[in-house]
Amino acid sequence: MASSDPQSTPTDDENDLAVSPDTVRRVVGALGDSDRAVLLASIEDVHPADIADLLEQLPPEDRKAFVELAGDDLPTDILAELEEGVRDDVVEALDDDFLAEVVGDLDTDDAVYLLEDMDDARKREVLDALPIADRVAIQRSLDYPDYSAGRMMQRELVAAPAFWTVGQTIDMMRARDDLPEDFYEIIVVDPSHRPMGTIALSKIMGAKRPATLDGLMDRDYRSFKVEQPQEDVAYAFNQYHLVSAPVLDETGRLAGVITIDDAMQVLDEESEEDLMRLGGVGDEDLSDTVSEIAKQRLPWLAVNLATAIIASVIIAQFDMVIEQIVALAVLMTIVASMGGNAGTQTLTVAVRALATKDITSTNAWRIISRECLVGIVNGIVFGVVMGVATWLWYGDPGLGVVLGVAMIVNMLVAALAGILIPIGLEKIGADPALASAVFVTTVTDVVGFFAFLGLAAIVLL
Amino acid sequence: MASSDPQSTPTDDENDLAVSPDTVRRVVGALGDSDRAVLLASIEDVHPADIADLLEQLPPEDRKAFVELAGDDLPTDILAELEEGVRDDVVEALDDDFLAEVVGDLDTDDAVYLLEDMDDARKREVLDALPIADRVAIQRSLDYPDYSAGRMMQRELVAAPAFWTVGQTIDMMRARDDLPEDFYEIIVVDPSHRPMGTIALSKIMGAKRPATLDGLMDRDYRSFKVEQPQEDVAYAFNQYHLVSAPVLDETGRLAGVITIDDAMQVLDEESEEDLMRLGGVGDEDLSDTVSEIAKQRLPWLAVNLATAIIASVIIAQFDMVIEQIVALAVLMTIVASMGGNAGTQTLTVAVRALATKDITSTNAWRIISRECLVGIVNGIVFGVVMGVATWLWYGDPGLGVVLGVAMIVNMLVAALAGILIPIGLEKIGADPALASAVFVTTVTDVVGFFAFLGLAAIVLL
Repeated sequence: MASSDPQSTPTDDENDLAVSPDTVRRVVGALGDSDRAVLLASIEDVHPADIADLLEQLPPEDRKAFVELAGDDLPTDILAELEEGVRDDVVEALDDDFLAEVVGDLDTDDAVYLLEDMDDARKREVLDALPIADRVAIQRSLDYPDYSAGRMMQRELVAAPAFWTVGQTIDMMRARDDLPEDFYEIIVVDPSHRPMGTIALSKIMGAKRPATLDGLMDRDYRSFKVEQPQEDVAYAFNQYHLVSAPVLDETGRLAGVITIDDAMQVLDEESEEDLMRLGGVGDEDLSDTVSEIAKQRLPWLAVNLATAIIASVIIAQFDMVIEQIVALAVLMTIVASMGGNAGTQTLTVAVRALATKDITSTNAWRIISRECLVGIVNGIVFGVVMGVATWLWYGDPGLGVVLGVAMIVNMLVAALAGILIPIGLEKIGADPALASAVFVTTVTDVVGFFAFLGLAAIVLL
Repeated sequence: MASSDPQSTPTDDENDLAVSPDTVRRVVGALGDSDRAVLLASIEDVHPADIADLLEQLPPEDRKAFVELAGDDLPTDILAELEEGVRDDVVEALDDDFLAEVVGDLDTDDAVYLLEDMDDARKREVLDALPIADRVAIQRSLDYPDYSAGRMMQRELVAAPAFWTVGQTIDMMRARDDLPEDFYEIIVVDPSHRPMGTIALSKIMGAKRPATLDGLMDRDYRSFKVEQPQEDVAYAFNQYHLVSAPVLDETGRLAGVITIDDAMQVLDEESEEDLMRLGGVGDEDLSDTVSEIAKQRLPWLAVNLATAIIASVIIAQFDMVIEQIVALAVLMTIVASMGGNAGTQTLTVAVRALATKDITSTNAWRIISRECLVGIVNGIVFGVVMGVATWLWYGDPGLGVVLGVAMIVNMLVAALAGILIPIGLEKIGADPALASAVFVTTVTDVVGFFAFLGLAAIVLL
């Protein structure tokens, strides 16, 4: 924690971000000795987000011991920071009354995160222990679909009518004892609680007391609907530099507000999802067990096996050719590998550009033809280099030509597959990151082997 | 733009985010007719970030035409939104006086973005045309290293001494005519301008006029040093839910402030970088030309070629075996492909976990052993399946056993390579995303071919 206090000991940069190894050692020691006082002392000055990371990094049995040893002194603001798997373990170890108290203190978005995956009986018990207003608010948010703006928003906000003055608004805020902990703008609403505009706090700060909100408010603000997908929200916050934005219910009334820290987290999760999907990994957490992870990864390996078998069936069609020219078996993987690599390059660029909405009907054809040209250019470069190298290696110019031509063909096809497959998936409403990599490498393997071995069969036999 | 104005025409969701195809058509039409009025009218209600996207999507010649046609009416707030390649093209087309005026109006972070890659002579001319205070501020920011907190920060901020009351502070802000457009907290400083604490505007709003800043401020705030890398800043904003944070110069004095929208952009760029590097793509923009892109991608293709040649040299060692059992040529790619896929899965998870600082000395060994177990489990599953399938396909149990064992070996090695290579690169200070994929697939290709063909040579001949 940075501090200007001159007595604080200097911390090096690594400790400054994330948990220090020293803290981990003290915590593990305290858990071993079941020493509650030491445990609480060692996490006293640690940021809740870092305590959450520490819990995630501990083995499952230590995690349970941590929660039980800390008891009612468990810092409750760590709960909303935990990743899903660990959150469920920790929440399970807490008793209902304690949990209800915690949930009641949280903003709705965090409360919903704690409750959303709980089994129904327990969720009911925790909700029943809450004051009616909290219960209704949380229940309504839980009714919105997963990964929607309605789930992301908090209901704690500051709204005011347009005819109020800056002075009245400030006095209202000074008088309110339930002011949200973090808010960045005031939402101006009409009598039926429909937003009319927003005013940043910084603008309120610079305005004179008699000025009316009506004259100050930004009418051209951006809002979201409760059912809008969270990735649209994250995109808009990043694109338009929003810091907070109102969320409207089905009738157009103000339902809540989304703040940028939540949008930033979603943006980060969406990037993670794209990265993971391109890598053929599902929605796994670092704290998952061996069997959970093995099961998660199995489907993608099975798909890969299927495509590898298709490629080997292609090879099998040419086994007579390979038997006569065994060099083909040595060289064919080079053609397939270069195609796979070129296709992955194009694919990566395409998936990212689609995620950031940078490929549109305006530039799609230009980008497709550009990728093809890049494929041809690099295909010729590497086709010529490897064609000559093969000629020199095997002393057979025909073999060199076959390899060079096959490589050019495969790198052009790789470019086409790398750009058309993700665009096609997007068009039919599928996630381009999800299956593209498998399709693209299937295409490049099949075309690579077929072009090389087929050409060899025609030219060299 | 969402609006509660009942007269506004309803826009569908796709138009709501990003530029509508209709706007693009009008802009392209206006450029064709060189019709300045239509051009300006068609972008009048479009958000600057969307106009920037539109410019990026236009072909280069249209981009230039756009800038020239718009002339002095070019909406200047689009400039800081452009990606680097397009920014340089557009800035080049502007005249010095216009550019100096624009730069003078921007916050320092945006001004620096426009100037940083300009050639020195022109940069000097633009800077010389600025008022001395702006010039010094921008020059000092330009002196900080690329991708540092010093480059990200803006110098426009609100600071106040600790003994001031809330009332005095609000009066000061009302009186100031250079209040920053967006700010979210007040930084409390000592007489030598060193930060002592921060106060969120929302907290000022809820406090009574006589309260002193000293009593309200958060002493336990997080700050950055000018030379700190921008990825640390982005990580901290996301981890600790910061909205703005002070930046200190070498002497510990307040130099500027970083706001969350800039941190969010960096976080997004860092994710993009990881994704691109894993896909073997450099720092290319969608607006780059064919030759720029072909050149960018060439080095990675060359590295891949080298590794493909290594793999084929391994195969060449066994050409006598393949000549006798041509089925080996058909099946060997399956072993290599499954290893490559399993290795990529582990690698993807490892690279992401390292980027989010989720792999530490606390859990590294646990994660390494978990990955090995996952590799063995899935290796056995697929080894047995394919072993039996091979036996049935070729009617040769020996061939099935060789393939099954080779696959188990390769998937274990894939797991080890997938986790140890990125951790090793991180340990020596390299970016795990940069070269890991090539190393991992080299290992899985070499081990896959060697294990399968080597075992076959021993067992089947």
